[in-house]
Amino acid sequence: MRVAANTQEWEDSLTLLNDTRDRIVGQDGSIRDKAKERLDQLTMPYWALGRLMDLAVDLAGITRSLHPQVDKRVVVVMAGDHGVVQEGVTQYPQEVTCQMVLNFLRGGAGINAIAKVSDAQVVVVNMGVTGDFSETDEGGGLISRFMGPATGNIAVGPAMSREDAIRSIEAGIDIATQLGSSFNLFATGDMGIGNTTPSSAIVAAFTGAPPEQVTGRGTGIDEETFKHKISIVEKVLSTNNPDTTDGIDVLAKVGGFEIGGIAGLILGVAAMRKPVLIDGFISTAGALIAHSIAPSCADYMIASHQSVEQGHRLALNHLNKRPLLDLDLRLGEGTGAALAMPLVEAAVRILTEVATFDEASVSRADK
Amino acid sequence: MRVAANTQEWEDSLTLLNDTRDRIVGQDGSIRDKAKERLDQLTMPYWALGRLMDLAVDLAGITRSLHPQVDKRVVVVMAGDHGVVQEGVTQYPQEVTCQMVLNFLRGGAGINAIAKVSDAQVVVVNMGVTGDFSETDEGGGLISRFMGPATGNIAVGPAMSREDAIRSIEAGIDIATQLGSSFNLFATGDMGIGNTTPSSAIVAAFTGAPPEQVTGRGTGIDEETFKHKISIVEKVLSTNNPDTTDGIDVLAKVGGFEIGGIAGLILGVAAMRKPVLIDGFISTAGALIAHSIAPSCADYMIASHQSVEQGHRLALNHLNKRPLLDLDLRLGEGTGAALAMPLVEAAVRILTEVATFDEASVSRADK
Repeated sequence: MRVAANTQEWEDSLTLLNDTRDRIVGQDGSIRDKAKERLDQLTMPYWALGRLMDLAVDLAGITRSLHPQVDKRVVVVMAGDHGVVQEGVTQYPQEVTCQMVLNFLRGGAGINAIAKVSDAQVVVVNMGVTGDFSETDEGGGLISRFMGPATGNIAVGPAMSREDAIRSIEAGIDIATQLGSSFNLFATGDMGIGNTTPSSAIVAAFTGAPPEQVTGRGTGIDEETFKHKISIVEKVLSTNNPDTTDGIDVLAKVGGFEIGGIAGLILGVAAMRKPVLIDGFISTAGALIAHSIAPSCADYMIASHQSVEQGHRLALNHLNKRPLLDLDLRLGEGTGAALAMPLVEAAVRILTEVATFDEASVSRADK
Repeated sequence: MRVAANTQEWEDSLTLLNDTRDRIVGQDGSIRDKAKERLDQLTMPYWALGRLMDLAVDLAGITRSLHPQVDKRVVVVMAGDHGVVQEGVTQYPQEVTCQMVLNFLRGGAGINAIAKVSDAQVVVVNMGVTGDFSETDEGGGLISRFMGPATGNIAVGPAMSREDAIRSIEAGIDIATQLGSSFNLFATGDMGIGNTTPSSAIVAAFTGAPPEQVTGRGTGIDEETFKHKISIVEKVLSTNNPDTTDGIDVLAKVGGFEIGGIAGLILGVAAMRKPVLIDGFISTAGALIAHSIAPSCADYMIASHQSVEQGHRLALNHLNKRPLLDLDLRLGEGTGAALAMPLVEAAVRILTEVATFDEASVSRADK
């Protein structure tokens, strides 16, 4: 299946992505109106809980319910390695991706700590990590959707074939669908040494911003490495020339396996009409791919936080999203997305539990 | 006790406030250093969880522990009425204060919904509300520290006597102390129709900012009422001329009973070396009073959110605090403070649960 003589024929045979795309329609306007109507009558000054009330309207529109369910929560951490680390764009060795996946499975990482706060399960997916997980069976919590030990070096060629780009997205859709029977609130997460470089390239491609505006310091590189990284992002784009009218092409040429998995997860969750919290810079790069494939899927995204990575703001603007949190986070793993889950719960409780003026016999404002 | 022939003699007899002030010292620097040392070694890029890590250091410094306990949570909603409503500064009738207190007790208000998210208990204190609570006994959850049915109209005279200002603060200290045996994470909250007007006066007094910069639209007044409110705040200040070197004088002249209760609560929590989340504009006005009495108590304050009220930013700057959340909230009741409790829990879990590079056998960054 990985190589097809005729690409068009091969794509036609893959119905999961197309079917999923066809199932994605935007939020329901009439239920949004009903939610607004209820929120207007709550025992508080008009819209006094601000963005939590906006979020409550979104959750109603997403779930088609005035009692959205968001109590079963999962953070899906997609992991993958990147050939572009050969270019010296990061200060951490590639083996850290594998080591951190094991850290996730043992519960010792940042995402494990924060997921406990939000009562969320952490699911880790090996989309393409260099390393040996033979001693880690599925019982250990790792889901394998292995696409290869790492992407190609995008400074000299594409990250992956078009077929593999579709397969990585479909892996994400498939995982969303499987988890859909158990969970009603999703969060994206990532792990992959070097993955701010493809993310910068994706954001530059879709927003049209120059590489120096979308490239950040990732895990914390120095000034010299930072300048080098910008030049690599420029080279990535000039070498590959991705077609921004085609999200699959962008993913194949300058993306990553875990970024494809994130894009697929978002598409799959949107098709199920459930909310998905988007984590930081890498997750938002995945969101841009998903948005390019099915623009209405943005209606199901909740931007969780504003990352320190400078390109993140441009990416969120492109999606017309305003993040809930701004706490100088730059870790990834889904930490920002998991951290925003209590805000989602708060929005639901405001919609469903706060009394109206009439119910509580509270006087209204004088007109 | 409410009227003393000799004020000085009367004040000397009141040792609770003085004793509390004397017990307040700042955070512990050595335990802060130890917390930083641990956080530096966690399996993530340096300080990659940003402000959550700053918060973790504060929590260690506050509690003198590398394992701060923040699992027993309480929101204390101080309620009081204000004579200045006679000046037409708000659109809601005064009876709403009493009605909302009953709404809190029945669990139908915004704070009840959000406190559930954070697993916090809501404690409501009647510091001086106009209304009949005879059918609401303490079993119904209301604590009575009744100072009078409302403050004096601060546009024409002081809010209360100096003695009552001290008594309102001591009520807050006393409540903090009583709750201290059951709770380790506190949040301030307020209810009081008209209370953005005294809060604006307090913030103007301490920051020196002109009334038009610290006055907001409160529950949502129109342009005409807004201009009128600014002129009332000007009148409040010129009529009373509070002495900003003396927090008790500011409270007595332009404050409110619930604002005194909030100030006392903060002082009491600081004396117990526990963290207290400061809610929005009114709570921060109370925090300014507390800070004026015992500057080191600011070390125990966590600024929960940036309110829509424009004076809030100036008040937080005066306390050298940066808020955690910015969600366009303007409700009060402790809603923003309760909403930030999961972030406090996250900070603790990061400090106590995330593995170090050595513990997890993860490679460090190249130098």
